[in-house]
Amino acid sequence: MRDDSPLETKKLIMLPGPTNVPARVTNAMLRPMINHRGREFREMHARIIQNAKYVFGTKNDLFVLSNSGTGGVEAAVRNICSSGSKIIVPVNGEFSRRFLEAVNLLGGKGIEIPVELGNAVTVSQVEDALNQNSPVTAVAVIYNETATGVTTPNLRQIGELCRKHNTLFLVDAISIQGGVELPVDEWGIDICVTGSQKCLMTPPGLALISVSPKAWEIIRKTPRSYYFDLQLCKQFMENNEIPYTPAVTLFYALDEGLQMIREEGLEARFKRHTTCANAMYAAAEAMGLQPFARREVRSKTVVAIKYPNGIEDKKFRGTLDSQYRIAVAGGMGKTKGQIFRVGIMGSVSEFEIMATATAVESVLSELGYGLNTGEAVKAAREVFSKAK
Amino acid sequence: MRDDSPLETKKLIMLPGPTNVPARVTNAMLRPMINHRGREFREMHARIIQNAKYVFGTKNDLFVLSNSGTGGVEAAVRNICSSGSKIIVPVNGEFSRRFLEAVNLLGGKGIEIPVELGNAVTVSQVEDALNQNSPVTAVAVIYNETATGVTTPNLRQIGELCRKHNTLFLVDAISIQGGVELPVDEWGIDICVTGSQKCLMTPPGLALISVSPKAWEIIRKTPRSYYFDLQLCKQFMENNEIPYTPAVTLFYALDEGLQMIREEGLEARFKRHTTCANAMYAAAEAMGLQPFARREVRSKTVVAIKYPNGIEDKKFRGTLDSQYRIAVAGGMGKTKGQIFRVGIMGSVSEFEIMATATAVESVLSELGYGLNTGEAVKAAREVFSKAK
Repeated sequence: MRDDSPLETKKLIMLPGPTNVPARVTNAMLRPMINHRGREFREMHARIIQNAKYVFGTKNDLFVLSNSGTGGVEAAVRNICSSGSKIIVPVNGEFSRRFLEAVNLLGGKGIEIPVELGNAVTVSQVEDALNQNSPVTAVAVIYNETATGVTTPNLRQIGELCRKHNTLFLVDAISIQGGVELPVDEWGIDICVTGSQKCLMTPPGLALISVSPKAWEIIRKTPRSYYFDLQLCKQFMENNEIPYTPAVTLFYALDEGLQMIREEGLEARFKRHTTCANAMYAAAEAMGLQPFARREVRSKTVVAIKYPNGIEDKKFRGTLDSQYRIAVAGGMGKTKGQIFRVGIMGSVSEFEIMATATAVESVLSELGYGLNTGEAVKAAREVFSKAK
Repeated sequence: MRDDSPLETKKLIMLPGPTNVPARVTNAMLRPMINHRGREFREMHARIIQNAKYVFGTKNDLFVLSNSGTGGVEAAVRNICSSGSKIIVPVNGEFSRRFLEAVNLLGGKGIEIPVELGNAVTVSQVEDALNQNSPVTAVAVIYNETATGVTTPNLRQIGELCRKHNTLFLVDAISIQGGVELPVDEWGIDICVTGSQKCLMTPPGLALISVSPKAWEIIRKTPRSYYFDLQLCKQFMENNEIPYTPAVTLFYALDEGLQMIREEGLEARFKRHTTCANAMYAAAEAMGLQPFARREVRSKTVVAIKYPNGIEDKKFRGTLDSQYRIAVAGGMGKTKGQIFRVGIMGSVSEFEIMATATAVESVLSELGYGLNTGEAVKAAREVFSKAK
């Protein structure tokens, strides 16, 4: 068809989503079309929900929505938000800022806890906000701030606080669920949202959302939504169906992706993500580069690295893309031009990290940044060796 | 993997969506993942929009949303609906009833024109409703009522009326755009919505929506939405991008599907749908069955047929599915158990119609309905012969 199209040549997608999709997952999309109101779909849907609950560590209800992660965020907020409902949102980057905006747009009152970029909210900051704004409908934490590569620690303690204050605990886990430990029930998370195209190694287009009994109490008192109506989803789930025509081929892909996660096991998966991230951080530091996030909150799924003086974002990423066919992301909002971000997600392994570290080293060197070639690769390899 | 899974054996999907996906479209989803903020995506996105505008017959803005058709309906309504905005909706089946519900749920005031099931609204009914309810924000017509197999005629005249009354004209063309003539600009349609999984022969998960300059005037005065914010879509379109992570693999499929439509040409395509539908109606009548829709409003993309006395819906469709591997749909709402519906969409051809007619004849005969075997097939074949 279009042999000259750049689409046809595979790239290493080291973005913080979408990420590389394993061949097994891609090939699953070749299954023939089925009736979304038939037995075949219902059986697959039941299996997907069961496996997704394993990944989420939850016995709560769980739904797969046919839309982007952002639609998942809208579903989470819209279903608990009556006019003026107060929702506390710690803001430490572009995605948490957008979450706050969503709350205000969707009729709620977003209460911001401003947090320095590169850092995460503390438990006592959340406690202060809860005390000052009572009654609060929910605390919403972006577990992994994709824009800055920061993971918020102490979610379990924030969950306990929420229970004490009789407040819902919402977690946006879009760029992290399935890559790093996040046991929804154990940590008291009432609503947890993720996207298909991150650590679940499925193409983009699906959002997953879990809903606790405590959340249902609020949802039932909230004005019904239309496309994002979770009550309708629950009603159709009784028959293992979905209110509207689901994105069937993406369900095929998710089904396969979740099956692969079960085969690997969550523990092994978390270890793999951690080792790959640590290797990438080690490579960066061996090149004399600084991660953007403070050490104690550094993400294991998004590695954000500051550019050294003299290295221009577009030139760096452009060269990496055209010469090495590796895609990494730039900064967003205030960090635009100041950082680049490497996604450590889904099927990521030593191969992808070594290829990326090598290429980053070469491009920086080519662009005139002084470094001892080979040091980055050596540092990364050491992390992998120790982990074996 | 799961060799025993019924997913692995191909069925003939004669549903009113999703429908059979051509191999070229399915295979397009094998393209490797790309950066949705990169050149590859922008080039493909520009091509998709250009080809979709050809299918819609429009020079207006057009957007592809990563959600089901129902999400497309929400986008259409939410973006023009301020509190209490009056929207007239002729209701002649389940999908038009849902559209009316959407208007009321999303803050508007739905004004129903009740229409007998199996029939379509008339121009004078719309005119009366416009005169009685002035000022009206929009008239919303479900061009093809999927639940009853009825296509509303005289859209052009309704469009003229809307212009005269300075009212927006919304058309839900989900189960028909790309299969039957619907020139958006020529007929004065301000907002037109369709889904990927119907006549565009792409898997489900995308909605397409066109927006006229007159619609933008209203949209700009309407409170901003979040996931369905068309103003944000327009802003990102300047750079050929999409506000949120799009369902990339479904875009690959849509790209290929639209390319195939261009290769075939709209005229040939419309003729093919019409011939296939006429053959299906002829087969039904040769078996002594009655179409549900009145003759003058019968849809060319959804053929709805009344069951003869003594034929039970579940038994009929179950046998068709298990013995002939052909999926057709049942009735919805008030017609549940009374009709079956055959989708005539996308890649449909003589082969699928002949297979369906033959199988329907056999199953009815097996279930004890008296007919002269062979008559249905003969009648259908005659339609195809004449059309050549």
